[in-house]
Amino acid sequence: MKKVAIIMGSDSDLPALGGAMDALKALQIPYAVRVISAHRTPEAAAEFAKGAKDAGFGVIICAAGKAAHLAGAMAANTILPVVGIPMKSSTLDGLDALLSTVQMPSGMPVATVAIDGATNAALLAAQILALSDEALSKRFADYRAAQTAKVIEKDRRISEEYSNL
Amino acid sequence: MKKVAIIMGSDSDLPALGGAMDALKALQIPYAVRVISAHRTPEAAAEFAKGAKDAGFGVIICAAGKAAHLAGAMAANTILPVVGIPMKSSTLDGLDALLSTVQMPSGMPVATVAIDGATNAALLAAQILALSDEALSKRFADYRAAQTAKVIEKDRRISEEYSNL
Amino acid sequence: MKKVAIIMGSDSDLPALGGAMDALKALQIPYAVRVISAHRTPEAAAEFAKGAKDAGFGVIICAAGKAAHLAGAMAANTILPVVGIPMKSSTLDGLDALLSTVQMPSGMPVATVAIDGATNAALLAAQILALSDEALSKRFADYRAAQTAKVIEKDRRISEEYSNL
Amino acid sequence: MKKVAIIMGSDSDLPALGGAMDALKALQIPYAVRVISAHRTPEAAAEFAKGAKDAGFGVIICAAGKAAHLAGAMAANTILPVVGIPMKSSTLDGLDALLSTVQMPSGMPVATVAIDGATNAALLAAQILALSDEALSKRFADYRAAQTAKVIEKDRRISEEYSNL
Amino acid sequence: MKKVAIIMGSDSDLPALGGAMDALKALQIPYAVRVISAHRTPEAAAEFAKGAKDAGFGVIICAAGKAAHLAGAMAANTILPVVGIPMKSSTLDGLDALLSTVQMPSGMPVATVAIDGATNAALLAAQILALSDEALSKRFADYRAAQTAKVIEKDRRISEEYSNL
Amino acid sequence: MKKVAIIMGSDSDLPALGGAMDALKALQIPYAVRVISAHRTPEAAAEFAKGAKDAGFGVIICAAGKAAHLAGAMAANTILPVVGIPMKSSTLDGLDALLSTVQMPSGMPVATVAIDGATNAALLAAQILALSDEALSKRFADYRAAQTAKVIEKDRRISEEYSNL
Amino acid sequence: MKKVAIIMGSDSDLPALGGAMDALKALQIPYAVRVISAHRTPEAAAEFAKGAKDAGFGVIICAAGKAAHLAGAMAANTILPVVGIPMKSSTLDGLDALLSTVQMPSGMPVATVAIDGATNAALLAAQILALSDEALSKRFADYRAAQTAKVIEKDRRISEEYSNL
Amino acid sequence: MKKVAIIMGSDSDLPALGGAMDALKALQIPYAVRVISAHRTPEAAAEFAKGAKDAGFGVIICAAGKAAHLAGAMAANTILPVVGIPMKSSTLDGLDALLSTVQMPSGMPVATVAIDGATNAALLAAQILALSDEALSKRFADYRAAQTAKVIEKDRRISEEYSNL
Repeated sequence: MKKVAIIMGSDSDLPALGGAMDALKALQIPYAVRVISAHRTPEAAAEFAKGAKDAGFGVIICAAGKAAHLAGAMAANTILPVVGIPMKSSTLDGLDALLSTVQMPSGMPVATVAIDGATNAALLAAQILALSDEALSKRFADYRAAQTAKVIEKDRRISEEYSNL
Repeated sequence: MKKVAIIMGSDSDLPALGGAMDALKALQIPYAVRVISAHRTPEAAAEFAKGAKDAGFGVIICAAGKAAHLAGAMAANTILPVVGIPMKSSTLDGLDALLSTVQMPSGMPVATVAIDGATNAALLAAQILALSDEALSKRFADYRAAQTAKVIEKDRRISEEYSNL
Repeated sequence: MKKVAIIMGSDSDLPALGGAMDALKALQIPYAVRVISAHRTPEAAAEFAKGAKDAGFGVIICAAGKAAHLAGAMAANTILPVVGIPMKSSTLDGLDALLSTVQMPSGMPVATVAIDGATNAALLAAQILALSDEALSKRFADYRAAQTAKVIEKDRRISEEYSNL
Repeated sequence: MKKVAIIMGSDSDLPALGGAMDALKALQIPYAVRVISAHRTPEAAAEFAKGAKDAGFGVIICAAGKAAHLAGAMAANTILPVVGIPMKSSTLDGLDALLSTVQMPSGMPVATVAIDGATNAALLAAQILALSDEALSKRFADYRAAQTAKVIEKDRRISEEYSNL
Repeated sequence: MKKVAIIMGSDSDLPALGGAMDALKALQIPYAVRVISAHRTPEAAAEFAKGAKDAGFGVIICAAGKAAHLAGAMAANTILPVVGIPMKSSTLDGLDALLSTVQMPSGMPVATVAIDGATNAALLAAQILALSDEALSKRFADYRAAQTAKVIEKDRRISEEYSNL
Repeated sequence: MKKVAIIMGSDSDLPALGGAMDALKALQIPYAVRVISAHRTPEAAAEFAKGAKDAGFGVIICAAGKAAHLAGAMAANTILPVVGIPMKSSTLDGLDALLSTVQMPSGMPVATVAIDGATNAALLAAQILALSDEALSKRFADYRAAQTAKVIEKDRRISEEYSNL
Repeated sequence: MKKVAIIMGSDSDLPALGGAMDALKALQIPYAVRVISAHRTPEAAAEFAKGAKDAGFGVIICAAGKAAHLAGAMAANTILPVVGIPMKSSTLDGLDALLSTVQMPSGMPVATVAIDGATNAALLAAQILALSDEALSKRFADYRAAQTAKVIEKDRRISEEYSNL
Repeated sequence: MKKVAIIMGSDSDLPALGGAMDALKALQIPYAVRVISAHRTPEAAAEFAKGAKDAGFGVIICAAGKAAHLAGAMAANTILPVVGIPMKSSTLDGLDALLSTVQMPSGMPVATVAIDGATNAALLAAQILALSDEALSKRFADYRAAQTAKVIEKDRRISEEYSNL
């Protein structure tokens, strides 16, 4: 089975990535976690990206804040799909990371999810891998059904408690 | 081979989607083009999304402007990966469409590309499909190599003409 | 008497909706509270909207954050007026929800109130229902007069205490 | 039948309001058009708002740009629902008008539609009036069905012409 | 001597206005403090503005948040100079109030100071009144000289303690 | 009579300042026009500001774009009230100039008007000077009455032509 | 003498870089012009940056639009100072490029100039090189004096023609 | 050896500048720390800038918030390179300071770093001075190598602990 890489530009992003790991675990998708900086370890970034396909990775998830170049730097060196998570940092509420991640020039896409959207990055990776993996496709459908069921249950409880008819 | 769907929320988005069709043609990926509005034809949207996997689609590309709900509405009804293109409209330079497309709630990702980034949406779809299609993977690598070669050639010409050493 | 629906996209929005319930109670307007997600329970959303008029609702209030599609999804499936409350979430201060709610395409309006403006959503619903309900119209005028009186009383106290003439 | 008022803060807004008049005509809703400025003719504004209900108006639509106070100034002097259209002007793409219109303080809602969203303002007014007017409700449903049919027709044509399967 | 009016749109703005009162006291300028809402007490607003010149006021300072119409509503009803303080509220960091205050249409200026800039509003009022009051002009120059001296003293202390030459 | 100074940071701002000159002429207020750059001619800026009061100026209007420091540089060197006009330039729609002009630190206000709001800058200067000049006060009131009359006349014409009752 | 490199991410940026070349020519600073893309030719980018110091470059100027990673990619591979020019592209007015260029993480600065600020990038490079080149320092001072003289001359002409005293 | 000046517009910026001092100390670059306000002590600002070159300074770092004119005011009075740090203040998350610092008019650059980017300002100054100081160039390369090593070590630890293969 193809693996997912979760790469963060700084170890300070680690706590915000728990949701991605949880989702991949729940879906039984193997993943590697790395700290690679587009700016502080550019050679590690290029090297990882170039070798990722042969190393058995299917999707590369990159999380970075501020002038977030990590996902783009990865994308430039691989033909694997790259998912970018713009991370909120101490100023501008993540808008800088969002624009730095999503506004990629023609020819080099990054599949961008919401600011701090680690869980969604993992789910998107799962959807991509599920295209050629029926068992995963089934697990994904179950995961989503469970999620839907939770909302329906909350609806039942809250509707009962708060409606005033 | 899996197909790609290119869905626009309004026929006024058509001219801006040429780049996506060109890229898919160049990569020999079959595609369907549709006009489906999350708001004006919500039932068509749900119906298409629900049937897309069985109809042989692998990726759904959605282009919409303003309060761009189309990609999210598709994503809510399929487990296929959905790629969102935020379209610039007459005000706010596409920021409204970008935020409406990318800021999806946890559990329901949309793979968002740049504002008006139709070509990149198609390339992302190709990268996703190439994961399980070695021939496409090879064509994609060639496409990208050609793109690189073009930049190198421009570099040579401009460097020669404009440098002043 | 026509009822108001208060629908939230996530149960995490519940605390911010107290003001809406209080205002409807004060104005003696019956209301139902629901948790329905445009993305996680899209069928519940369509079903509710389609049946709302016949179920006796007059106005549907929708509260959602981030890529807030809930109000638009409701509007797409009913001819009742839909009021949208953009909810502030952990990033971007609610700007994403505001644009996702208010920038609806031509043909499908959502009556948008301020970010986190739950009380105003309820008051707007009341104003709409009061158009054909003279008793409610009278209660609404009283509610507003009381509000005015409170400002006048504050003006008296603060003017006295802080002026330095 | 209740009338709709279309009030613009400046006669320069007139060309952008054609869509509202067309929609009201199509739905057979009588309307008055006025030029009243919250800042240049504040007394006319207060006077109109105070008398609007007795004059047979059901909804007041206000269009204004920049520091758009018109809708708020109307709302402050009537209990009728007020619909605000933020108008794009020469700078800031209408963001100033949007925030000035939608961010109303608690107690005084304005039902805000998209920037330059004149048609939607009229449709929202129609939805509000249709609550107590079954004939209008029917005409509105027909109007919307026609709109849906147009999208379906465009989908058919464009899908045929552009798909590449 | 002409008086200054400090008007707030809501009593919740009171704590943020202390700087204005302190500055006026320090400069021996008499001032009245009022709570008047453009939306909740529009008649009090118009009445105050219309009578302000004859009541001996020279400058009207208005502080309001969100869709801040107070300064504009005052300006519309007086020929006295009106100073606007955009107040930060719970969302959007005061950008809504800034745009609602400063982007006034041609013909009706509001002299806008920084977000939460209460002290500056008072100093601007003092500068305006000082134009025809030499004694105040002298006090203002002294006030500013003291302010300059404080910066120079801080420069001396910090330069000594932190420089590393 | 006190004079007004109209200072522009660049001669490219000249065409946008015609409205200010027209308004001052209409109100019979003498004015000097200067090109002084806070960055390119900082000494001229300081010198002008320091001498402005003694030279008979009452208000200094400063127009500048981008990182608009001109008004602040003037304010730092005079106790006269300084009015700032943020000028729209080729990017960012004037938001840079607005923030650079209005967000002055505590102790040093600039009376900021709307982006490209030259006419309003002149009218604000007139309101300030009128405080101690009854004849100007009268001319200003007349100017405003004429402006009001024009809106009323437009209202009459447009209301007649476009209403559909 | 140390050389300056002017690197653009795309040849479409060429017309906007004329000002940089003119300024360097005027100051007699040799420069190389290159087209290198952080994303399309990442190896050329790393290679250039790594060899730039030994090749005799003193400053690297990078111009890029959208998710502008070029300056950061250069900075990551050299200890030479890197100057970044954010280029305005078809959406968002250059805000994306500005944030992608300036918001660099701690440890890896990019000296950012204004959006489309090519001339300033060249002047900054000149100021940096002038630190250890007295002749250039003299030329730079002359360049600036000429610039000042031009403003003073414009001031004289415009003041004469437009003042109304 | 040339010195660096660290100038803050307000002593409240002091805590945020520790990173700059630490970096300069680590690189053995002498520095002076000053509190100089472009608005409250404009003469000290001009005087410092004019004398900085002769006083042995090579780079001037300026930190200021809100309408941050300090770096520009310095740049206007020296030919030394000026580095600007936009400081986050209580509103707008530093966007005002960023635009006020970076959007300098043609002819007068400020080398702008990230919001609150004090460490990067110091590193940029070091890179500039290192151009003509081989020993410093060596220390800078070591500093950066240490930084890279830290990321590599973190990568090793986190990869080991969190990967799930």
